[in-house]
Amino acid sequence: VTQARDAPAGAVDPLQRLTKLLARLPGIGDKSAMRLALAILRTDAPYALALAEAIGSIHASVRECSVCCDLSADPVCPRCQDPRRDDTTVCVVAQPQDRIAFDRAAAYRGRYHVLHGVLDPLAGIGPNALRIEALLRRLEPREGGPSPVREVIVATSPNVEGDATALYLARLLLPLGLSVTRIASGVAVGGELEYADTTTLTRALHDRRPL
Amino acid sequence: VTQARDAPAGAVDPLQRLTKLLARLPGIGDKSAMRLALAILRTDAPYALALAEAIGSIHASVRECSVCCDLSADPVCPRCQDPRRDDTTVCVVAQPQDRIAFDRAAAYRGRYHVLHGVLDPLAGIGPNALRIEALLRRLEPREGGPSPVREVIVATSPNVEGDATALYLARLLLPLGLSVTRIASGVAVGGELEYADTTTLTRALHDRRPL
Repeated sequence: VTQARDAPAGAVDPLQRLTKLLARLPGIGDKSAMRLALAILRTDAPYALALAEAIGSIHASVRECSVCCDLSADPVCPRCQDPRRDDTTVCVVAQPQDRIAFDRAAAYRGRYHVLHGVLDPLAGIGPNALRIEALLRRLEPREGGPSPVREVIVATSPNVEGDATALYLARLLLPLGLSVTRIASGVAVGGELEYADTTTLTRALHDRRPL
Repeated sequence: VTQARDAPAGAVDPLQRLTKLLARLPGIGDKSAMRLALAILRTDAPYALALAEAIGSIHASVRECSVCCDLSADPVCPRCQDPRRDDTTVCVVAQPQDRIAFDRAAAYRGRYHVLHGVLDPLAGIGPNALRIEALLRRLEPREGGPSPVREVIVATSPNVEGDATALYLARLLLPLGLSVTRIASGVAVGGELEYADTTTLTRALHDRRPL
């Protein structure tokens, strides 16, 4: 009723419209959306225009890299193009954010592959929804000889779906004669043992290694 | 270093650019910004275009109502135009959100005035930064006779700045022969006494009323 009173027939309040659009983003409730809309209004107009341009052009300017399926402005992403990266190793991650996290740690110099999800039968996400075919294509022999890939590191999160995805990939890739490994999980570096959950502690104990 | 490696000279990654712009919004950190940028990319393109349009046009389509200073798509907002609202009462709020909160409660049928802030000397916000002059203009005699306003309800939040603003307005408006009131504060309806903070309890006790 309030809304009908505020907005006469035909007119839609621009602030309400922006708020409703923002509220469709994940993690943004109605009140946050209103706060963001007002913040955009309170900033300088050039910022709002730059943000609008960036949002409006993002679908046209970002695609999946034809090799690793990571998001990229180019048909082949900078990491797949980089000749200094090691071709023998492919690190498989679930999402673009995970690749960024690895890059930030700067501890890895091989190639990446982004699945864009993990296996989750309850949510209806099967192997065909992931970029597994594109991964297999990278492991096939090329014109010049065999694929250079020797090891596939499965770097999905250590939870039910991530572990299931790792297991699925291992079964698929081991017959190809590749080394398939899983990133270690255990007590986080800098973390306190007493605050670690029991599953993590169990895993840390089970995966113990000689010093 | 990573960034320089990822983005060759001249090219700026569109996703990084969008993330940086989103991270300038209040309450949005780097990781939330990245998550929002990827969410926008994952939604349908028409949504992204609608959002871009709404953001890009918000500065041009929303202004302050020339009467109550609330944000509005029209020169005079729907609430100031509404002939059914009571002209004798003006409810003064700090921000547009507060007006929306009152409208949602639907318990008030008078007019509003939006200050766009509260007095906060430590942050350098004095009376001139607020829409107090516009409020005084509403209380001046009109061509046809005196201003219809009889009561000004100060509905700023019950904290140091909100109380100081209320006191400032009272000193300014009482000499005009107006009734100046303050919204009640106390234990929230539906709230538990045992969880109320001491200041709220003290205020609730002090402002007790006969039954």
